[in-house]
Amino acid sequence: MTRLVIGIDLGGTETKIGIVEESGRIIDKSIIPTKVFEGRVAVVTRISEAIKELLMNSGLSQDSIEGVGVGSPGSIDHDSGMVLFSPNLPDWTGFELASMLRTLTGIRTFVENDANSFILGEWAFGRFKGCEHMIGVTLGTGVGGGVITHGKLMTGKNGYGGELGHVIVQPGGPLCGCGSHGCLESLASATAVVNMAREYSKRFSRSLMYQSAQLTAKVVFDSAREGDLAATMIVERVTDSLAIAIGNYVHVFNPEHIIIGGGMSRAGDLLIDGIRRKLPRYVMPSFNDTFHVSLSELVENAGITGAASIVFYRHS
Amino acid sequence: MTRLVIGIDLGGTETKIGIVEESGRIIDKSIIPTKVFEGRVAVVTRISEAIKELLMNSGLSQDSIEGVGVGSPGSIDHDSGMVLFSPNLPDWTGFELASMLRTLTGIRTFVENDANSFILGEWAFGRFKGCEHMIGVTLGTGVGGGVITHGKLMTGKNGYGGELGHVIVQPGGPLCGCGSHGCLESLASATAVVNMAREYSKRFSRSLMYQSAQLTAKVVFDSAREGDLAATMIVERVTDSLAIAIGNYVHVFNPEHIIIGGGMSRAGDLLIDGIRRKLPRYVMPSFNDTFHVSLSELVENAGITGAASIVFYRHS
Repeated sequence: MTRLVIGIDLGGTETKIGIVEESGRIIDKSIIPTKVFEGRVAVVTRISEAIKELLMNSGLSQDSIEGVGVGSPGSIDHDSGMVLFSPNLPDWTGFELASMLRTLTGIRTFVENDANSFILGEWAFGRFKGCEHMIGVTLGTGVGGGVITHGKLMTGKNGYGGELGHVIVQPGGPLCGCGSHGCLESLASATAVVNMAREYSKRFSRSLMYQSAQLTAKVVFDSAREGDLAATMIVERVTDSLAIAIGNYVHVFNPEHIIIGGGMSRAGDLLIDGIRRKLPRYVMPSFNDTFHVSLSELVENAGITGAASIVFYRHS
Repeated sequence: MTRLVIGIDLGGTETKIGIVEESGRIIDKSIIPTKVFEGRVAVVTRISEAIKELLMNSGLSQDSIEGVGVGSPGSIDHDSGMVLFSPNLPDWTGFELASMLRTLTGIRTFVENDANSFILGEWAFGRFKGCEHMIGVTLGTGVGGGVITHGKLMTGKNGYGGELGHVIVQPGGPLCGCGSHGCLESLASATAVVNMAREYSKRFSRSLMYQSAQLTAKVVFDSAREGDLAATMIVERVTDSLAIAIGNYVHVFNPEHIIIGGGMSRAGDLLIDGIRRKLPRYVMPSFNDTFHVSLSELVENAGITGAASIVFYRHS
């Protein structure tokens, strides 16, 4: 009998829930609004309802599900499944997420940081699955990180390890949400891209970037693709920051693969070509040819399958 | 019967050799000049002679020794004990160090990078021995690093992991021996300290630093302790660079202890107080109180006991 798991990609805006087979195939999924503003109890109750509906639609009972895996933003105590600190879900600090969801659904539940869950998903289902030394970087509202070393998720002493977005790439650079200046997140997240675009609005008022109804990271990358100067300068700054950070990861972890995911990874070649072109400047010769940088190919369902892999990983 | 191991701290100038008990106690030791310029075969032959003499003086036979551990500069293939690349021992690239020493002494031999060997020594014999998440940074001619995570030495895919000295702390900063600009090593090694002192010689020609016969890192730190302005500015730059780098390690590894060793760690409070004062600027609030930064207390014999721990670690 095939093992079945529920994977939940808990996002600030929407939450994706899927029933996942051990092969990574998604049997069925649903997407619901997260509505963080309604408070954590309402959010978790809505998620548990969606799980029950999904199981009913698939003709499955709770008993047929091995566990629920949740990929959540923030620092997670992954033994208890408690959210310790989450900048984007302020109300959730100290919230016993796993425990509450288990009570509501009757299914044992495990919670992991969403970027750790991303790299677990790559490790379980991605193009380089099973690779023992791999690093995941997720570019979205923030910049997340997850590290597999010697075939295991590296969590560090308190489970906070792998905060790759808070490596400083430009001391004295832009203020980061974490309070430091010049973290990777302050220069290479979607938020940072939009901030940089706003800063350029006086000098380059006629840039393509400002002709869209809404200024988003996608608009900036699309404008750069059209040859827009200001947008190109922003993309250069983003890829340079990523190259510095990835050079650091290479020296520190000696990984085989660095995989870039998250919404902004959809910028594709513009992002990856820039990083690859700049990396040699920041990497010692003895590390040449020891690593590869690629874009995640799981993008659409990476959150769900990654969250599911938390359960498969715990029990494999 | 107590386990006995020979630990060899192979340095660019001198090589320390000791017979070490499992408790970390050194039964006997000798220090010989390395004389790199005589070529690798001469160096290794001299080491093997010193081992034999040391055993004879202690009334021990080769058979009573469980193994030889060598802490060597450079990138090491730790399965074969071959030196893959060593910036400070250029002649040694591709040298089968373990194999040759084994042939000459008849004792099985293991080689590890010297900074990895430092943290293994801390893990085996140091103040925080047995700590599952600890990081070692050695400040000497270069800056080395070693990482224990989840109770194991993190080596990465090729055994090159833990190159903590080549994290970039000042993009576009001083040229580093590795070819990048602004690596920690280019700002916080003894070499970097002397370079910075030389650069200041015009502007601060009357600084205390220039009144010693030889300009060394020790002279710079001693001058700073006397209140010398230029020397103080250098120490500030060193500790700021270390604080940025250590902040990065904290976010990335979530370690319990960061231990600073190497010759320059003898600068003591001037170094550690500066780092501790600056660190909060570079560390996210959620990591507060998760880690401690200390100076190694094994300084004098750290190299020998660290090298010995390579063998204890392999076979424990």
